[in-house]
Amino acid sequence: MEDTELIVTTIRCLGADLVQQYKGGHAGTVMGAAPIAVSLWRDVMRYNPQDPLWFNRDRFVLPCMPFPVYHASFHWTSRAAGHPEIEQEIGIEVTTGPLGQGIANSVGLAITAKQLAAQYNKSGFEGLIDNTIWCFTGDGCIQEGVGQEAISVAGHLGLDNLVLIYDQNKVTVDGTIDACFTEDVPLRFKAAKWNVIELDLNSPNFPTPSSQVSAVTEALLAAKAHKGEPTIVVITTTIGFGSRKANTGPAHGQPLGEDEVAYVKTKFGFKPEDKFFISEKVYSHFSHVGPRGQTLQEEWSSLLSKYAQQYPEEHAELRRRIGGKLPAGWRDLLPTKKDLPTADQPTRKSSGIVLETLAPRFPDIVAGSADLLESTFVSWNGMVEFQKPESGRGDYSGRQIRYGIREFSMAAMSNGMAAYFPAFPGREGGVLPIYSTFFMFTSYALNAIRMAALQKLRTIAVATHDSIGIGEDGPTHQPIALASFFRALPNTRLWRPADAEETMAAWINAIGEGEGPSVLCFSRQPLPLLEHSDRQGAWRGAYVVHPESSGSPPKLVLVATGSEVSLAIRVAQKLSSTVSDLPIRVVSTPCLSIFDQQDEEYRKKTIPSTTALVVSVEAWTSFGWARYAHAAVSMTTFGHSGPQAALFEYFGFGVDNVTKVVGDWVGKWSTVSGGKRELRIPGVGDFQELLHGPLH
Amino acid sequence: MEDTELIVTTIRCLGADLVQQYKGGHAGTVMGAAPIAVSLWRDVMRYNPQDPLWFNRDRFVLPCMPFPVYHASFHWTSRAAGHPEIEQEIGIEVTTGPLGQGIANSVGLAITAKQLAAQYNKSGFEGLIDNTIWCFTGDGCIQEGVGQEAISVAGHLGLDNLVLIYDQNKVTVDGTIDACFTEDVPLRFKAAKWNVIELDLNSPNFPTPSSQVSAVTEALLAAKAHKGEPTIVVITTTIGFGSRKANTGPAHGQPLGEDEVAYVKTKFGFKPEDKFFISEKVYSHFSHVGPRGQTLQEEWSSLLSKYAQQYPEEHAELRRRIGGKLPAGWRDLLPTKKDLPTADQPTRKSSGIVLETLAPRFPDIVAGSADLLESTFVSWNGMVEFQKPESGRGDYSGRQIRYGIREFSMAAMSNGMAAYFPAFPGREGGVLPIYSTFFMFTSYALNAIRMAALQKLRTIAVATHDSIGIGEDGPTHQPIALASFFRALPNTRLWRPADAEETMAAWINAIGEGEGPSVLCFSRQPLPLLEHSDRQGAWRGAYVVHPESSGSPPKLVLVATGSEVSLAIRVAQKLSSTVSDLPIRVVSTPCLSIFDQQDEEYRKKTIPSTTALVVSVEAWTSFGWARYAHAAVSMTTFGHSGPQAALFEYFGFGVDNVTKVVGDWVGKWSTVSGGKRELRIPGVGDFQELLHGPLH
Repeated sequence: MEDTELIVTTIRCLGADLVQQYKGGHAGTVMGAAPIAVSLWRDVMRYNPQDPLWFNRDRFVLPCMPFPVYHASFHWTSRAAGHPEIEQEIGIEVTTGPLGQGIANSVGLAITAKQLAAQYNKSGFEGLIDNTIWCFTGDGCIQEGVGQEAISVAGHLGLDNLVLIYDQNKVTVDGTIDACFTEDVPLRFKAAKWNVIELDLNSPNFPTPSSQVSAVTEALLAAKAHKGEPTIVVITTTIGFGSRKANTGPAHGQPLGEDEVAYVKTKFGFKPEDKFFISEKVYSHFSHVGPRGQTLQEEWSSLLSKYAQQYPEEHAELRRRIGGKLPAGWRDLLPTKKDLPTADQPTRKSSGIVLETLAPRFPDIVAGSADLLESTFVSWNGMVEFQKPESGRGDYSGRQIRYGIREFSMAAMSNGMAAYFPAFPGREGGVLPIYSTFFMFTSYALNAIRMAALQKLRTIAVATHDSIGIGEDGPTHQPIALASFFRALPNTRLWRPADAEETMAAWINAIGEGEGPSVLCFSRQPLPLLEHSDRQGAWRGAYVVHPESSGSPPKLVLVATGSEVSLAIRVAQKLSSTVSDLPIRVVSTPCLSIFDQQDEEYRKKTIPSTTALVVSVEAWTSFGWARYAHAAVSMTTFGHSGPQAALFEYFGFGVDNVTKVVGDWVGKWSTVSGGKRELRIPGVGDFQELLHGPLH
Repeated sequence: MEDTELIVTTIRCLGADLVQQYKGGHAGTVMGAAPIAVSLWRDVMRYNPQDPLWFNRDRFVLPCMPFPVYHASFHWTSRAAGHPEIEQEIGIEVTTGPLGQGIANSVGLAITAKQLAAQYNKSGFEGLIDNTIWCFTGDGCIQEGVGQEAISVAGHLGLDNLVLIYDQNKVTVDGTIDACFTEDVPLRFKAAKWNVIELDLNSPNFPTPSSQVSAVTEALLAAKAHKGEPTIVVITTTIGFGSRKANTGPAHGQPLGEDEVAYVKTKFGFKPEDKFFISEKVYSHFSHVGPRGQTLQEEWSSLLSKYAQQYPEEHAELRRRIGGKLPAGWRDLLPTKKDLPTADQPTRKSSGIVLETLAPRFPDIVAGSADLLESTFVSWNGMVEFQKPESGRGDYSGRQIRYGIREFSMAAMSNGMAAYFPAFPGREGGVLPIYSTFFMFTSYALNAIRMAALQKLRTIAVATHDSIGIGEDGPTHQPIALASFFRALPNTRLWRPADAEETMAAWINAIGEGEGPSVLCFSRQPLPLLEHSDRQGAWRGAYVVHPESSGSPPKLVLVATGSEVSLAIRVAQKLSSTVSDLPIRVVSTPCLSIFDQQDEEYRKKTIPSTTALVVSVEAWTSFGWARYAHAAVSMTTFGHSGPQAALFEYFGFGVDNVTKVVGDWVGKWSTVSGGKRELRIPGVGDFQELLHGPLH
């Protein structure tokens, strides 16, 4: 058997074996796409197997294609999972699996590569950052809306460092693609301003694996060479090639079965009993890949050395970014509490202070909005839009991204950007993707935020208009239950600051601490700067923002977040003045999941639920509060359209009403004798009786 | 002023006034699109203002366009909200606001109209159901992925009863659309197999409002007449027409300002001080619309009477469906517990029994999948696919929909279907949209499910592969936190049945009770039919599925859902046999939100948290359980890829491990003296100390 044929066939048999062994995976695609894999990893891609994290490597994203191709082509020996996971394996660029997002991740990677090139490449140093982003996709990713959004963005931005390889095998889990997808794919991409190359591997022009690989290589190199537009290479393949189940749904998502695997191997001249068989010839045929990669990287390293001499500042900055740390002292650039505006201010506007301060200084920061830039305040003086230079709107060095009304791909593209530099705990810089929309519409992007959490990718969602406080836009735009998901999700920090000071705390934490995504919920409406708000306290997740006035321990604790903290303080003041022997504390809880991780002593000291009646006050549903609170003033229905202040009254969040409701609970759960108040403490199971919802 | 000009101008001024008064809304679009509104409501649409719910009316969906056009054109007097809300106003077909979903809703409405026509129209009765679905859309809806998905589906299905009116004003909140969206829209629609009509209202050919309205009417009637494909009418307009802010971002999303409103009115020959002015001439010009609508409906009613005589059975069925009730006794068609399979069975397969039984009998049921039909069991013998007849795959009477890999639009289309017949509490029939995917991927559709809840639309999501029990597909496919959102959301029932019996309970509830959407979470892995499982109990949300064995009240209550119920029972059996004086009860909680709504007595009797240690056992994160449980065996991290049974062991959900963990807690929180166990009961605030996560 001729070498290339042997290799293609080896991959086909490996795919069949692997999926059979693990009883899951996608053997059919591996078998169909094997020539593409060989072309990519042997002929086309620039990478160094000895250093899979070489900075200027081509990036390869596999939104749909099963792991075995990657394993078979790159690592040869490796663990296997159903879908590619970066947690599992160095050299996997992003974790995919949920369809469509891989395309958006690739667009994010391509944006970052373009941006770095525009920022650092100089005349004579065009090779500093000149890699290509290869994304291998199937029908599923192209059907998904998030994929469609990303396709539109890539075409708009003219990302010619991006190549989408579309494995057009026309078969999905449920059968042939014609049952649900009959678009003219090349035309669709042309409409989105892409370059389109078509190649049919089933054509009689390509009778052998070797001729197929050559044809693929020619197409991919043409794609890479095309300037001004991203390219899609539409390659027609046969799913389950070699099997009698070829071109059927079962070839997509199921193991072939022992008999069929044996049939395939026999047909290809392999022995059925040899599992995961790779002959020495295969290894030796690939032996040039290592030295070639080594040479590529060495050439690049020497270019970088020359660059360091000619452009020491740029070089130092790039090195710093690769190292992932912002310059020490970046925290001190932000105003301390005494320098914050004292007038009432929406926290979304306070948040703008952070971007105004940091973004001009640090090229690491990339910000953008899903067409709500005026509302989300992620802009700064002198910012340049990331746009095609020919558009006249900006250039590729720009760091303000106009995502359009495409929330899901905005978040998934941000994941791609964050994945450009490897993640590690405490990473601050490199690329710091910040994206913004109304909090409600992060729900469009929910799975991408989850993917950031799963991969511990540090992205920041600026989520403004965070409650019924949004007012007139009405219940479609008023989140009430969404926080529950983010609070329940590991590796994720949902912040809801009460004022400008806590807003600083949220940002510093989101940029500088831990891993994974942060969702920063900000108010549309103005909020006062609180007397005792404190970033140190906020960093513990919850802290006493309004201490009980008398010397005795609190008998009532109001636990609130965001816009309801100042409300709770006013309630505390009013209630203290009218009810006897009731020391009241207000605890601000800007980040519940950080508070969850504090030690028991701090938690119980801050919210002493065994000695005080604890009431949560938050204009969201109360789900999740029973861990700390005995009772809740919360939303129990969807919101309404109306002016902000009127809505708060309507839903029972007026000072008078909350004072009355909480006062009634205090009355019911305590007795006063001789001026001294004795509390009974509600137990688990009483919470459902102690819920306050809308007045109506 | 000539009549048509007066009307167009009146609408423009109304839009400016309304948005100015409410300080929110989209005046610019109203001003630009006024000729379209006049054409639609005066010349083109078939409707009866005296009976806005006339069955064969044209449907109009407004995914983006602000309310005033609708008000101004249709009701003239009406309440106003920032976005159209079905809850607020008869005659609003669906609530929109979150962009993109309106297109999908329209596709859903068009599917139902096509389906009903195919099911009931007969020769000579082509006019029984022959309405048109009009959807007015802007740039935002077309950028959104959910809109893109729906466009692809509509083209694939050839829905020629659907007309999309694209108000191409090229301006969004953030400025001109060129900043983020430069697709060739007509070409994009051609790629998706749509008919495209283009019309530029800024052309010198249309110098007057009257000529503009005529041109629009001609285009819309041509669109309606086109057969075999849906049509998009791309109409170029000027946002903020008449204002000096025309063609700017501020004209999109902000009030014009008092001065500018005055300028516009003066320019149009209106008096600035006349607010919401509608002259008598406008009313009289529209006076023919009422009688015309009346005549249309009368003609249709007499056609229906003839139909009743010639096709009494079909007529009776259609009437029943319009009435919204399935035939009495439908519940009895489903197997009782003694007729259920006794062998272990995945609940997703038990769920299939329901579809197999009911779908062939009731044309109300429409089911489909996002390319996972083989996995989600929403199929039945003899089913016909909803497809273009020319495709050879089915026809328009079909009720199995191949949604493709498009979860978000699948759910949003289902909302459109459910909205075809008016919703009311206890509605069972009419159209009952059932859609299916893996539970994880309902997160792609999350906002559409929320919209169903907001509108109280009865849709059913079959969400299989509900936990780490999915196995090899790995953490990207394993939900751990998603249920928190659905459990926190009003009007929504998330079910997680423990066995086939509870699966029947879930389905009967989802179809026959209450309002709003149900999300039915089913296992991939086989589960045993439990000895004491009981649909009556399940309908109370939670019930005792394994009673404490001795006569004394329980001292330990394990509260579990789904696949963890049988685990909890095995733990209870093991623990009872090894620990002294510990009567153990297991409570199955298939629907937490229904349990939340039970009376206090039932809740406290079922889960006696003041006298027993209560531990929740669920392979999801524990968020939300502290209302009922003192402690939780739960997930605290993302999952992994591996065989199902191995994963349960790995994450601590093996019988031995749960027995040990719970036994330790019992030991810690109780003392035994003289053979009698005394419990201390943990309080609120102890929950965080009593969490059991992965073993690692």
